Amino acid sequence: MEKVTILQQAEAAFRDNWKFCIGTGRLGLALQKEYIDHLKLIQEDIHFDYIRGHGLLHDDIGIYRELTLEDGSVQPFYNFTYIDRIFDTYMELGIRPFIEFGFMPRLLASSDETVFSWNGNVTPPNDYDKWYDLIQAVVSHFIERYGLEEVLKWPFEVWNEPNLTNFWKDADKEEYFKLYKITAIAVKDVHPDLQVGGPAISGGADHWIKDFLDFCENESAPVDFVTRHMYASNKAKKVTPELCYQDLFENTMMLDELKTVREMINASPFPDLPFHITEYNTSYSPINPVHDTPLNAAYLARTLSEAGDYVDSFSYWTFSDVFEETDVPKAQFHGGFGLIALNGIYKPTYHLFSFFNKLGSEQLHRDENMLVTRREDGSIAIALWNLVMDKGEGFEKEFELDLPVQFKDVFLKRQTIDEDHANPWNVWKQMGRPRFPDKTQVATLKDMAQPLRRTARLASNNGRLKLSFTITKNEVSLVELIPVKDETSTYIGIDDSLIPSYSRD
Amino acid sequence: MEKVTILQQAEAAFRDNWKFCIGTGRLGLALQKEYIDHLKLIQEDIHFDYIRGHGLLHDDIGIYRELTLEDGSVQPFYNFTYIDRIFDTYMELGIRPFIEFGFMPRLLASSDETVFSWNGNVTPPNDYDKWYDLIQAVVSHFIERYGLEEVLKWPFEVWNEPNLTNFWKDADKEEYFKLYKITAIAVKDVHPDLQVGGPAISGGADHWIKDFLDFCENESAPVDFVTRHMYASNKAKKVTPELCYQDLFENTMMLDELKTVREMINASPFPDLPFHITEYNTSYSPINPVHDTPLNAAYLARTLSEAGDYVDSFSYWTFSDVFEETDVPKAQFHGGFGLIALNGIYKPTYHLFSFFNKLGSEQLHRDENMLVTRREDGSIAIALWNLVMDKGEGFEKEFELDLPVQFKDVFLKRQTIDEDHANPWNVWKQMGRPRFPDKTQVATLKDMAQPLRRTARLASNNGRLKLSFTITKNEVSLVELIPVKDETSTYIGIDDSLIPSYSRD
Amino acid sequence: MEKVTILQQAEAAFRDNWKFCIGTGRLGLALQKEYIDHLKLIQEDIHFDYIRGHGLLHDDIGIYRELTLEDGSVQPFYNFTYIDRIFDTYMELGIRPFIEFGFMPRLLASSDETVFSWNGNVTPPNDYDKWYDLIQAVVSHFIERYGLEEVLKWPFEVWNEPNLTNFWKDADKEEYFKLYKITAIAVKDVHPDLQVGGPAISGGADHWIKDFLDFCENESAPVDFVTRHMYASNKAKKVTPELCYQDLFENTMMLDELKTVREMINASPFPDLPFHITEYNTSYSPINPVHDTPLNAAYLARTLSEAGDYVDSFSYWTFSDVFEETDVPKAQFHGGFGLIALNGIYKPTYHLFSFFNKLGSEQLHRDENMLVTRREDGSIAIALWNLVMDKGEGFEKEFELDLPVQFKDVFLKRQTIDEDHANPWNVWKQMGRPRFPDKTQVATLKDMAQPLRRTARLASNNGRLKLSFTITKNEVSLVELIPVKDETSTYIGIDDSLIPSYSRD
Amino acid sequence: MEKVTILQQAEAAFRDNWKFCIGTGRLGLALQKEYIDHLKLIQEDIHFDYIRGHGLLHDDIGIYRELTLEDGSVQPFYNFTYIDRIFDTYMELGIRPFIEFGFMPRLLASSDETVFSWNGNVTPPNDYDKWYDLIQAVVSHFIERYGLEEVLKWPFEVWNEPNLTNFWKDADKEEYFKLYKITAIAVKDVHPDLQVGGPAISGGADHWIKDFLDFCENESAPVDFVTRHMYASNKAKKVTPELCYQDLFENTMMLDELKTVREMINASPFPDLPFHITEYNTSYSPINPVHDTPLNAAYLARTLSEAGDYVDSFSYWTFSDVFEETDVPKAQFHGGFGLIALNGIYKPTYHLFSFFNKLGSEQLHRDENMLVTRREDGSIAIALWNLVMDKGEGFEKEFELDLPVQFKDVFLKRQTIDEDHANPWNVWKQMGRPRFPDKTQVATLKDMAQPLRRTARLASNNGRLKLSFTITKNEVSLVELIPVKDETSTYIGIDDSLIPSYSRD
Repeated sequence: MEKVTILQQAEAAFRDNWKFCIGTGRLGLALQKEYIDHLKLIQEDIHFDYIRGHGLLHDDIGIYRELTLEDGSVQPFYNFTYIDRIFDTYMELGIRPFIEFGFMPRLLASSDETVFSWNGNVTPPNDYDKWYDLIQAVVSHFIERYGLEEVLKWPFEVWNEPNLTNFWKDADKEEYFKLYKITAIAVKDVHPDLQVGGPAISGGADHWIKDFLDFCENESAPVDFVTRHMYASNKAKKVTPELCYQDLFENTMMLDELKTVREMINASPFPDLPFHITEYNTSYSPINPVHDTPLNAAYLARTLSEAGDYVDSFSYWTFSDVFEETDVPKAQFHGGFGLIALNGIYKPTYHLFSFFNKLGSEQLHRDENMLVTRREDGSIAIALWNLVMDKGEGFEKEFELDLPVQFKDVFLKRQTIDEDHANPWNVWKQMGRPRFPDKTQVATLKDMAQPLRRTARLASNNGRLKLSFTITKNEVSLVELIPVKDETSTYIGIDDSLIPSYSRD
Repeated sequence: MEKVTILQQAEAAFRDNWKFCIGTGRLGLALQKEYIDHLKLIQEDIHFDYIRGHGLLHDDIGIYRELTLEDGSVQPFYNFTYIDRIFDTYMELGIRPFIEFGFMPRLLASSDETVFSWNGNVTPPNDYDKWYDLIQAVVSHFIERYGLEEVLKWPFEVWNEPNLTNFWKDADKEEYFKLYKITAIAVKDVHPDLQVGGPAISGGADHWIKDFLDFCENESAPVDFVTRHMYASNKAKKVTPELCYQDLFENTMMLDELKTVREMINASPFPDLPFHITEYNTSYSPINPVHDTPLNAAYLARTLSEAGDYVDSFSYWTFSDVFEETDVPKAQFHGGFGLIALNGIYKPTYHLFSFFNKLGSEQLHRDENMLVTRREDGSIAIALWNLVMDKGEGFEKEFELDLPVQFKDVFLKRQTIDEDHANPWNVWKQMGRPRFPDKTQVATLKDMAQPLRRTARLASNNGRLKLSFTITKNEVSLVELIPVKDETSTYIGIDDSLIPSYSRD
Repeated sequence: MEKVTILQQAEAAFRDNWKFCIGTGRLGLALQKEYIDHLKLIQEDIHFDYIRGHGLLHDDIGIYRELTLEDGSVQPFYNFTYIDRIFDTYMELGIRPFIEFGFMPRLLASSDETVFSWNGNVTPPNDYDKWYDLIQAVVSHFIERYGLEEVLKWPFEVWNEPNLTNFWKDADKEEYFKLYKITAIAVKDVHPDLQVGGPAISGGADHWIKDFLDFCENESAPVDFVTRHMYASNKAKKVTPELCYQDLFENTMMLDELKTVREMINASPFPDLPFHITEYNTSYSPINPVHDTPLNAAYLARTLSEAGDYVDSFSYWTFSDVFEETDVPKAQFHGGFGLIALNGIYKPTYHLFSFFNKLGSEQLHRDENMLVTRREDGSIAIALWNLVMDKGEGFEKEFELDLPVQFKDVFLKRQTIDEDHANPWNVWKQMGRPRFPDKTQVATLKDMAQPLRRTARLASNNGRLKLSFTITKNEVSLVELIPVKDETSTYIGIDDSLIPSYSRD
Repeated sequence: MEKVTILQQAEAAFRDNWKFCIGTGRLGLALQKEYIDHLKLIQEDIHFDYIRGHGLLHDDIGIYRELTLEDGSVQPFYNFTYIDRIFDTYMELGIRPFIEFGFMPRLLASSDETVFSWNGNVTPPNDYDKWYDLIQAVVSHFIERYGLEEVLKWPFEVWNEPNLTNFWKDADKEEYFKLYKITAIAVKDVHPDLQVGGPAISGGADHWIKDFLDFCENESAPVDFVTRHMYASNKAKKVTPELCYQDLFENTMMLDELKTVREMINASPFPDLPFHITEYNTSYSPINPVHDTPLNAAYLARTLSEAGDYVDSFSYWTFSDVFEETDVPKAQFHGGFGLIALNGIYKPTYHLFSFFNKLGSEQLHRDENMLVTRREDGSIAIALWNLVMDKGEGFEKEFELDLPVQFKDVFLKRQTIDEDHANPWNVWKQMGRPRFPDKTQVATLKDMAQPLRRTARLASNNGRLKLSFTITKNEVSLVELIPVKDETSTYIGIDDSLIPSYSRD
């Protein structure tokens, strides 16, 4: 039993930069109806500000093409048919693109290396002038279509994880810096107030950050923000033909890394630059079943609670299992990154985000298992979690909270996910893991993806309320304490005991 | 512990005449958006065939009007603007009107007596010729608009509860028979295959049935079906300015009455006539809180299970709390008849109907607490209930079922309402009974109106499955046993124990 | 042929106070789906800021009720079930109520006089203390539900046309002033920044304005704005059992009246008060067929063009034929006020408003037949009209415009309503005036309610463009001149003459 | 002036097999929202029974995959994630797949030849056993998901245009027959009543038909229907980097071909086989601007009118410009096959289909410019057209029809497309051919894509009605003659002349 006594005075502001940005499968997927349906669900409930994904310049969207004229000469052709449709969709859903320039259009590629089942080309341009022209054409078109005022709000990030050979040929740092500088200049040449940044590296290569900022300083390359990714998974323990298993580090690891990098930036020539984590998750594998579990939610709860101390934003990778990096999904649950599984089924981590979205901006208390906040209307909203990476049953934790509440009568609403609730992955296992479930099975999975919801009526005492909670293995709960304005006395002569089977309250 | 062993062979067919018809507030309310929204919810989930309500000829719909000509003479005018809009809505929602002729248009009324806060006039026509013309005009218009083939499926019922003085002036039986005969002839004169019936009496006056059929026989009045109402409530114990409390009879009372009346019809000159219960519920009061409770669902479960043995249909009164017989509803919960409360919140009895809608057509077993059915695909669907009219806690019942299942692996899905689940009335009490809840409160009430849903994976043994259930006070549950086609073995090398915190199943 | 040469420089700002407010049938109708459907159409296309109608306190919404206690005493009960639903709908559609307090709840009425087929009681309160309490309860509830910041934007107008005996018993001016003062104080006692005004008189009684403002000055009654109505119809020439025919005054009459009243206010003790026309139309009769005609649009075009010079707003009466002042509508077209006829069919005057909604805020030229504006993007938008009150055919007018355009290539789009286009009333006559049209007929009427649309490609010359228009009888047209960015040259080798039957452009 | 006198007696039945089937871009595109939006528009208005497209087995849908096991062995994996989503969509929209087996999954391909920008592999399987297994797996899965009763209605066609080298390696006939037989047997081995056919050839190779049927006879290959394509375009006259221009043959050419092939089948060992044209259009190029023109509609009108005499169905290629055979569309109008252009804009040919959808089943008269039909309710529906392949203006045709009508008062509704109406391609040219139009431009194009609609009131004389029409260049019109039930006399005292500016009718 852990006892926590919470003061009336807020200890800090709780910022909502956990919802600044969300990751997506390659942008070309945004033409699909199921993708749009999922994004709509997310936006109506949580409403992220930005969305970031690969593939803006990939050949399925087809922006870069070349036309051969009668005289045999070739001229570039910029085709915005699909990207306009995609960004129009984003605008309608109230989410802005966090632009990532990449990967290389086939016609501009210097060689054949590709990444992912969808063959994103990861090589430098074969002609940097054409690349410069492409960047200018693209950015100019966005301004023409959406207006300068709008596009000034779009960050432009150059490439993705150039420190890894599978994302950038030979992980050639000098070549990346070259690409960066030319791209950044191309953007700024369109309008000097546009925001550009990098180096979008993966974890494990933070010397790139220092080198990158030094490069920008020395070579006068424009830079408006720094970006990096973070994942908590160790190397694969086992890879089957369709699944990948990994261990996870402790969930403080990511926080430590953020702090370290933030300090690196502070010590750089650009100490005031914003720092964005443009991808994070437990595992970096799109076929790791951990993403489908309550553990994933319980693991990341502390990240949502604390990462905002160090970074300007951190972007969960990704909102939906509409995703193809390792081929078309082969089953209803397949370890995808998504907050929403195929067929519109909420995963546990979806609810983690939905719960955090109900928190207030005054932080009353924070520790490794909870975050207690107050909302503008004086009501209290608490996130609670119990990460258990050990196997087996049990592991309940008990808490007793002594809270300040500014009202007498309290309506308590608790929403819970854990191993037994809002765990459609488990129900799906009970069903025999149907790869392609029929409508009835999908309907059941949707039903079972809802949190357990409990309510109660409580009374505070001298402005204090004592609450006890038992938190089960990998539970994440949202508890809301809402003022009650009791109107019972306005029902003259009301008496529930006159109803058969009921008693006076 | 009650043990039930169920045979492979079906004991009977289970008919779905419990969903033949549903009651509605006066038809004029069907212009309202909230009414239509509720009906749409009901139709998408349950899909009743017919809908019956008062007020077809009431002045708010305004079918009967008179125009004064320049020479001072007066001619009838039939205005179908609103009734067309209403019936168009019904047709779009796939539900047909079960027509009730009434009440009296003011201009045709012989005196001023009215019923309900909306002042339905309950007096005989001041001119039976004009009444005959009105009936003909109305029926002819329906045929013109919807086609003869369609309207031949609409039953035409004459008036409502003429045996009660508040619904028919002086409860004058002879006058009713006169009205009946003229109306029936007016209908048949439009087309002889149209279906007409009565006498639409309340309970407690079953001699009217005999008298009515004798009258039809003796006076050659056309009659195609017999109608009656049934309610299980005793006289009011207490009436406050906005609520009415009553005791309920045993829930076999209604079944006994049905049997008796069916036998009366069998013994009449028209032994083969269909018999429709065109209204029923626990209480006949639209402000009795019992309608909002789980008790109401548990009470009526047996009715849904067994009443179809005696009658051709029985029509729950009513689908929605959009209803005005005792004035505009004064609070979110106010004891209304509706399956759906204001603001689109499901009441417990809604789920009773929704659960029955999942039952199969083969009845394997039936008793006072359950109905076990098999569906076409071989799956089993069981309704369970535990009516407790005593006050206080406890009263759980335990059952052990030994069932035939034609498959090895079983997915069990159980959906439950009881005092603690899908009881938004109780949550509303915790909130302080807000009369006019805000959007946040409505959202919580909607969330809390969902059944508890539990799933499990079971294995049958030699074609038999043993299940144990504990049923709480006023619980109604639907249990589905669905064949599993286990695909786990198609996932090569799958091993959940490689996920942190999980074990091999 | 009239020649108009238009200068580059704007002569004035064109204000959009013609869309500040729109009238509605009594608020109780806002529960109906068809009403809401029409309002949604209007808001999506035109988007009015406010909506004003009668009946806030009428008994169908039922705000004021009384409960009789066991001891026989009576207490007021304020029922917000319906008004909350109505105002929630308005808020969702982005339109605010322009509150009109009235008519008198039956239980507060001092006698039986009523107006309209829906029996609005037009008598003073039987108890001014109860009235004061009612106003306070209502306003306080709005603030509780929608927030103070929101409700501070809602004007509160006291009563409707108290200068007419059918709207206020005996048209008793002193009694109205009493009502006004008590109501205004009740509102201000809730919050002093709430806005209250009157006297909401009809035309023809403008001495009330002076008397009203003198009263406010002398009696220290709060007043924040002045309101009045205006209609252009003379007395009825003929009234049939369902239609009313009237002559119309010249369409400058209303403008003259506005100017006169504005000067009266200027000369009053409150010279700076806003002045709102809270109702206007051609005819004040809800069964005058003129409302269904193109004439109605052509007549009011000049009003929309010029009335904003004199008043802060003017509110067209009303947006929809969902309306019941003279009983349920008896036919598809019946002379109703609505911009939208039953079954969602646009009337000509709807398009007048839709056309004005496309005008720019720079007024380049205005006369009795046109209004030429420039929009922010430099494009030109022109409204043209040709009011013809004479019978017969012909009456075309020709115009030649010489316009400044800041671009070379011009895309012209002209949308036209006249006797032969967007005149569903005429098509309905061709159909034989079906009172209750079937779905196919409604579909045709909807099709035929669309404007004639014509486009062309033009070229300007030295920043000037010459255009000729022929305007038919009762035509209203919107002409838009939009800059063209010609991309034809980017299609290498394009040659339409290679398509069978086509030529090079 | 051509005079046509039409008899009361129908000369034939007019069949609606023109709407039996419609073509689509490759099935993988059916995941896209815009594709689904267009199909929904089509189905709501016209409602085709079947839809046929390429790419069922292409790697973007990804049905055929292989998994490598730990021991290095490989096993096939059938992934139905995407095809289930696609066919679920079709089922929801009420359209069934007309299955085309093809193209070859990369892992089953015997070499690298591909077709289209999306690289459909056109080579025989590298292993016919694996192909047989794939076909069985696919068909079995469809039955499992949609039920046998449903899938028995789906035709299974083997491959596409194997007589062309770009669609089938070397256009190897013997290899195709081998593929056909094995595929047909695989289908029949799943269920003998499933329907299978071929050879899906292009025009110009009709000896394949004879050879194919002889093969089936000699080799006992199952065959249930014969399929072929037809296009009316000659070789390209000019090909630009994004457009292709061709001449068209006379529009009787296709009818002649159909007759010839039907006679070939009649003379074959399978004289009773159904004959389906599974693709047709004017041009076979997806970048021929003719598809965007009114000419395309006028050209095909006679095909829709007469082709059903010879074939069981003919399937327009294709419903939508959501299509990628020659890369992502590069402009709003680009010569695509679609009835609906990008952004949901109707092309003229859309209206041709929509007009034919209003025709009756009794054919009263047919010639090269018109088709006169009677509908079940006695109303008359006439399609008229005036194909003009010459350049320039003029070319009007005049017709005088003398028609039988079974009613006195006639409401005439005429809907027209021609060079000046419902020609958004022309408006787009006026706009400067914007490749990626903004929302305002799209809205205007949608407005301008509506037919001209005209109405009139006529009176027949002794059961006959004389009508004159002038038909402009490339006009297609639908004329409907609908009985009027005139209700004017029910409006007592109605007199339009009492409305300012109007006269008594």
